Amino acid sequence: MNEPIYLDYNATTPVDPQVAAAMQPFLHAGFGNPSSSHAYGQRAHAAVRKARDEVAALIGAHAAEIVFTASATEANNLALLGVARALPDRRHVVVGAVEHPAVMQPALHLRECGWDVSVVPVDATGRVDPREVAAALRPDTALVSVMHANNEVGTIQPIAEIAALARANGSLMHADAAQSAGKVVLDVAELGVDLLTLAGHKMYAPKGVGALFVKRGTPIKPIQFGADQEHGLRPGTENVPHIAGLGAAARLAREALPAATANLATLRDELHRRLAAEVPGLLLNGHAEQRLPNTLHVSFPGVSGRELLAAGADAVSASVGSACHSHGDAVSGVLAALGCDAARARGAVRLSVGRFTAAEEVATAAAALIAAWRRLAT
Amino acid sequence: MNEPIYLDYNATTPVDPQVAAAMQPFLHAGFGNPSSSHAYGQRAHAAVRKARDEVAALIGAHAAEIVFTASATEANNLALLGVARALPDRRHVVVGAVEHPAVMQPALHLRECGWDVSVVPVDATGRVDPREVAAALRPDTALVSVMHANNEVGTIQPIAEIAALARANGSLMHADAAQSAGKVVLDVAELGVDLLTLAGHKMYAPKGVGALFVKRGTPIKPIQFGADQEHGLRPGTENVPHIAGLGAAARLAREALPAATANLATLRDELHRRLAAEVPGLLLNGHAEQRLPNTLHVSFPGVSGRELLAAGADAVSASVGSACHSHGDAVSGVLAALGCDAARARGAVRLSVGRFTAAEEVATAAAALIAAWRRLAT
Repeated sequence: MNEPIYLDYNATTPVDPQVAAAMQPFLHAGFGNPSSSHAYGQRAHAAVRKARDEVAALIGAHAAEIVFTASATEANNLALLGVARALPDRRHVVVGAVEHPAVMQPALHLRECGWDVSVVPVDATGRVDPREVAAALRPDTALVSVMHANNEVGTIQPIAEIAALARANGSLMHADAAQSAGKVVLDVAELGVDLLTLAGHKMYAPKGVGALFVKRGTPIKPIQFGADQEHGLRPGTENVPHIAGLGAAARLAREALPAATANLATLRDELHRRLAAEVPGLLLNGHAEQRLPNTLHVSFPGVSGRELLAAGADAVSASVGSACHSHGDAVSGVLAALGCDAARARGAVRLSVGRFTAAEEVATAAAALIAAWRRLAT
Repeated sequence: MNEPIYLDYNATTPVDPQVAAAMQPFLHAGFGNPSSSHAYGQRAHAAVRKARDEVAALIGAHAAEIVFTASATEANNLALLGVARALPDRRHVVVGAVEHPAVMQPALHLRECGWDVSVVPVDATGRVDPREVAAALRPDTALVSVMHANNEVGTIQPIAEIAALARANGSLMHADAAQSAGKVVLDVAELGVDLLTLAGHKMYAPKGVGALFVKRGTPIKPIQFGADQEHGLRPGTENVPHIAGLGAAARLAREALPAATANLATLRDELHRRLAAEVPGLLLNGHAEQRLPNTLHVSFPGVSGRELLAAGADAVSASVGSACHSHGDAVSGVLAALGCDAARARGAVRLSVGRFTAAEEVATAAAALIAAWRRLAT
């Protein structure tokens, strides 16, 4: 039997074969500890330095501004909790209503510690209105954290506008770009952010590595304690193979952009066109334009998205929302924040294409989903 | 030119080829997110489950008691800070004087947060006297954290005795076994610990993965916040390739023990014998018996260990202490805690053998170090 067609690139991407190849030396002869003075250590150290350059180049940063972490979750925790540690006189943060748990939960932890947390709402397309951020800002606002693009519906936020408001207020700006990197061009100067999160496993590097951009001069302290790796911000022996992989992934992403954005959108829109042509009442969730080019979040009428995917599971692997919640039955918090009604939320499916999606796969997957919908809806 | 002989296994180990092989599927077709319901995700989920079983088996634990982390540093932070979060009515921890920074620094962070930290001294061999621990315990002692074996001199601590004292006092016991796992048999029940730290890259798995054993019922809370992976104790998409690697490494270590302990000691003692025969005044640091079987920490007379290693760098790669401090010139805090005089500390070199050390390499390395010493000392 063939493997199902993979349309869940927002949950995780395959490791690009060039990334896997770039990692291999560090799973074999290049095993040194980057902190060791001898030749083995210095080769590993050089690999980490090269990767830092490559990741910095993807987002228009300086190498010294890149902190490698074990995940985007850790990068987000470092951004929120590390800034809070560095600014103990502030007591307030602002976050968007559709943030990933890796931002929302650290924010709620700050609340437990006595901070105030303002959650700014999103409109029906999932966009944060910058005016809502402006209204939430206070003199003691340490940080505004709004994701660059939503992991479920794919809506892209007006980060530059929000960042300008934060800056004018003397607050720092963080954006979780875990879902964006490699899909759209990202430039930290254009975005105006002080902190930006990247996830390896959403951009064809392996799971288990991420990075936090920390603009020079940003007040931030570590949230884990040990030796002084990563500019003293993140202790622990460096994950050299994964860091080398993230570097290679960043280089590949940079080389493929901006054409990659258009290629993904072509595949995604063809998938949408085919589904819409055969499924009357199919609804698009999220923003029609300000959206990740690879993400198609749609609600099928009269069915449960979960049952639809189960019915088509031999042909297509996708999800009803964030992988982090795939085992629950509750309505996605993201869709609730968008004000989706129950039927629309129930029928929702997230289809996300990627670098290795072929045009034929789009056609086959669309046909399988249409067939599954017909079986269930009638 | 040949590669230098690697005698720095305590800094980091090569990845065992069988471990690297076990990881490969998850850098290629097996790329799913373990949280995804579909086939790709479920294969990754199964791999993590298998690795959890394998790691548990190495230390006599249950699979549900293993929390995968990105490093031993993170595991130690989770142990100390996670227990502190769960026991907010306690205000005191006890740590050994020669703990790794990944334990000492979280303890000092607790001190910053208002906790009291007792640092119990070690004797001239690097051993903690359990009576010192008994004297330090207080009614509000949340946790005692003493490393199983020291990373520099290799001294093994009387963990079972210390754990019994902690337990009798109603305190939890944590041991950092980053340097021990795979070198000596470890059993959490025999040790009597509530928490035990493992490091992948000291046991032939890659850098970037570790584990924390958390005995069932131990009060502990997460220190990073996000989705609910790892029993809700450690958020972030699982590092499936590295976790699979750690599982394979644990299985290999278990299969090789206890014979591996004797094999390492044979190599290490032969290295010692050859050096001592030609270097009058060579001093052994640490405990002569209660010591990691692979670790030879010696002081050469009349030279700087750093200069000695530089002089022999073409032939041998080793270190003067912890890799985490290899760039500093200060005397090792461990040797200071042992009461080493300045000349002895200056001449210190840590030589650590491992699974891939050949008997001929021991002879060649010893000859090279002796020759380097003669050039420098005369």
